Amino acid sequence: MSASPASNSKVLSLAELAQRTGARLEGDGTVRITRVATLQDAGEGDISFLSNPRYRDEVAGSHASAVILAEDALDLTQVPRLIHPNPYACFAQVAQLLDPYPAAPPGVHASASVATTARLGANVSVGAHATIGEGAEIGDDSVIYPNVTIYPRVRIGARCIVHAGAVIGADGFGFANDKGNWVKIPQSGSVIIGDDVEVGANTTIDRGALADTLIGDGVKLDNQIQIGHNVRIGDHTAIAACTGIAGSTVIGAYCSIGGAAMIHGHISVADRVTIGAGAMVRQAITEPGGTYGGTFPIAPVRDWLKNVSHLRNLDRMNERIRALEKRLADSGK
Amino acid sequence: MSASPASNSKVLSLAELAQRTGARLEGDGTVRITRVATLQDAGEGDISFLSNPRYRDEVAGSHASAVILAEDALDLTQVPRLIHPNPYACFAQVAQLLDPYPAAPPGVHASASVATTARLGANVSVGAHATIGEGAEIGDDSVIYPNVTIYPRVRIGARCIVHAGAVIGADGFGFANDKGNWVKIPQSGSVIIGDDVEVGANTTIDRGALADTLIGDGVKLDNQIQIGHNVRIGDHTAIAACTGIAGSTVIGAYCSIGGAAMIHGHISVADRVTIGAGAMVRQAITEPGGTYGGTFPIAPVRDWLKNVSHLRNLDRMNERIRALEKRLADSGK
Amino acid sequence: MSASPASNSKVLSLAELAQRTGARLEGDGTVRITRVATLQDAGEGDISFLSNPRYRDEVAGSHASAVILAEDALDLTQVPRLIHPNPYACFAQVAQLLDPYPAAPPGVHASASVATTARLGANVSVGAHATIGEGAEIGDDSVIYPNVTIYPRVRIGARCIVHAGAVIGADGFGFANDKGNWVKIPQSGSVIIGDDVEVGANTTIDRGALADTLIGDGVKLDNQIQIGHNVRIGDHTAIAACTGIAGSTVIGAYCSIGGAAMIHGHISVADRVTIGAGAMVRQAITEPGGTYGGTFPIAPVRDWLKNVSHLRNLDRMNERIRALEKRLADSGK
Repeated sequence: MSASPASNSKVLSLAELAQRTGARLEGDGTVRITRVATLQDAGEGDISFLSNPRYRDEVAGSHASAVILAEDALDLTQVPRLIHPNPYACFAQVAQLLDPYPAAPPGVHASASVATTARLGANVSVGAHATIGEGAEIGDDSVIYPNVTIYPRVRIGARCIVHAGAVIGADGFGFANDKGNWVKIPQSGSVIIGDDVEVGANTTIDRGALADTLIGDGVKLDNQIQIGHNVRIGDHTAIAACTGIAGSTVIGAYCSIGGAAMIHGHISVADRVTIGAGAMVRQAITEPGGTYGGTFPIAPVRDWLKNVSHLRNLDRMNERIRALEKRLADSGK
Repeated sequence: MSASPASNSKVLSLAELAQRTGARLEGDGTVRITRVATLQDAGEGDISFLSNPRYRDEVAGSHASAVILAEDALDLTQVPRLIHPNPYACFAQVAQLLDPYPAAPPGVHASASVATTARLGANVSVGAHATIGEGAEIGDDSVIYPNVTIYPRVRIGARCIVHAGAVIGADGFGFANDKGNWVKIPQSGSVIIGDDVEVGANTTIDRGALADTLIGDGVKLDNQIQIGHNVRIGDHTAIAACTGIAGSTVIGAYCSIGGAAMIHGHISVADRVTIGAGAMVRQAITEPGGTYGGTFPIAPVRDWLKNVSHLRNLDRMNERIRALEKRLADSGK
Repeated sequence: MSASPASNSKVLSLAELAQRTGARLEGDGTVRITRVATLQDAGEGDISFLSNPRYRDEVAGSHASAVILAEDALDLTQVPRLIHPNPYACFAQVAQLLDPYPAAPPGVHASASVATTARLGANVSVGAHATIGEGAEIGDDSVIYPNVTIYPRVRIGARCIVHAGAVIGADGFGFANDKGNWVKIPQSGSVIIGDDVEVGANTTIDRGALADTLIGDGVKLDNQIQIGHNVRIGDHTAIAACTGIAGSTVIGAYCSIGGAAMIHGHISVADRVTIGAGAMVRQAITEPGGTYGGTFPIAPVRDWLKNVSHLRNLDRMNERIRALEKRLADSGK
């Protein structure tokens, strides 16, 4: 907790960036790079990249000191280049190497509460006012930001990032109804999180009722996501903010789930499925790799009110069409 | 804050479980029970239950050491049994008695901030970094988990559970518009929460503007729920995660509200109403006991785009049907 | 942190209220006012107001000791009055002057964590367990409630209010996909918040990837709102609870956005646009001042299921209508 805000900009030579990212260097490797920027915004000392072919025309006009390109775009510019099969992923690596944002310092902040039976791996960073419960485990190099709450027995893998305000391991929502009163079903399971997982700010992951809630390796969860008890999320699935997944649902690996999606409980979603923002998933999706959407479109409020009134009459409209078809058929038309 | 993670499993005889739950014992009461489990997963030392008739066939094949059954299912197995009119509620009680999860320790954690004018009942547990404001009151046996914020003057009843990150008593969202600028309307009310209420992780309950926000006895709120100022929720209503209730709305008693439902402000919902997940409630529901749904279904994205385009033309489709009906009528068909 | 809950009610004369709000006094200025209340609930010592013409008839019957009215309603009552062109805004000011709710005390709570390089303006209040990162800046008279997390370098203006559990400056959700694995794109930008902004409980505002996330002056954000990286929100826009705004979207000034709205990324919304609760905005709204709605209506579940089934067949229904039209046209009807 030292570095003043302005003291941590970094400078690397393009040759060094090539070496550390595995990219091939084209041109002058001594050019000094301090920052990543878009093709349009880049200037002296900046490195940019071309990933989306739509922006090919911007490469020649960019003022970047260096550009990351795929092999087939090699000749779009003559400034020093990094050639990489996945320019966007290479850009991400370069940006990590140059990132001026202060890193979370390893060690436990003096104000954090870590239970005596909790186990922290090497180089774990625990931020201010974070709370880690009895028997919890945090793997090497993980970062727990301030005000995070990790309930007892939760296990988190290596190289994870848990942003501020996240709550991992609170009780799942389980009650038996007894003549109108709710009797609490104790939530005796835990939450097991793999390696390289990121958990967004104020996201909540409940612990399981009997078995555990499971988050696979490489899963990325944005802010304000709710994961119900006994949910299982497959490796490398990414979920955007404000999404909710109800209890006991199983999400496959390599899925992409849009923001504010809502997924019912006790269903399964196959691997590599893409679900659009705001979609409400009520039934299992069994076919891997599909893309699903489903939101109601906005409209100027007058049009919306006019059209929405017919939604309550779709069954009746269908009947009227059928009646017309029948009358025409009867009349021999 | 002692017990190591593995040291708190419990063992009770079936006779003791019968006595403490009010169930009738059938068979050997000396069998020792250590865990609850599903009929399918249960093994030596486990007790299971039959609540849903769909699983009747699983009873005979279960390896559970004991089973909780209703009277009419008494003969489905010959293992020792607990007979109870509501097997699921009896199971919940048994699970509570056997729960190996470490209980929140009574007392105020050394890192918590409790205002000097706040009043805590007997056996209240206040977790790490929880904040309890001036004049707030917490009833006997309630548990406040870490990083919870309770604003001044909030009153919480007995046997409540407030999960980590919940915020109770923040300002309601009230502003008067003065030529485009927003003038804050102070929120002078409070939040009054009854007995036996559970509040999920990162749930927020705003205090009232003039009067108070009221949460009845036995209400169960899941994670990431937002309750606006001056809302009133009737006794024993259960609300699933990610639901929002806008200001001044009154929800009846014994309601069940699905996850991610959104309820407009200044409306009322009658007692014993069930609202499906994701439903947007725009108008009062005056009839008690009804069940309401309303979400837009997902579909493969190509089908969705094709169908959704017609939503903007429903009024036009209706007109076309009417025109056809008129032409057929005019032609005497 | 002193005042006992009952000791802070205030008493002002009507003349003093007139002077401090700029309203014109009609009648006895010595009447002593202790509380604001609705026309219906008001009694001895209370001041009420008439803003909505629907309630004109309630003025004469109100037991308020004073009423705030517009010029054209001057004669509705003979009790002492404040005459103001915007009675609701005047009421808000009066309510602020009388507000009995304990103010957040200036100064940094002993349990808060403020980085040594953070800069706090005059009279800033930092609540218990709040965390303010390296190089962050908080303007004069701002209030940071308990358990708020402000990441390094975030800048917050003067007279802001940040409610408990809010997280400002966590990483935006940015990853490059490399053969299924997600490579983190560092989020090197910050969050810049103007003056007079209110941020609700558990709201999250992510910092930008390269540039900054910007929140204009006078913006009011309710609880549990998610603002993605590089979003820009224009001055004096108000957003109700549970709304999500995805990355790089630009919202105009003086907009009103209903609760639980979801706004896609990389789009723009013009100034003075009103978006209804629950609406999903997928495309830019370029015309200033419009009002948009779009939610799917609830219905008794049986009706809903019946009608929703036709949503998947709208394209087919459209075809059937077209076929009928063609057959009738062909038959010369």
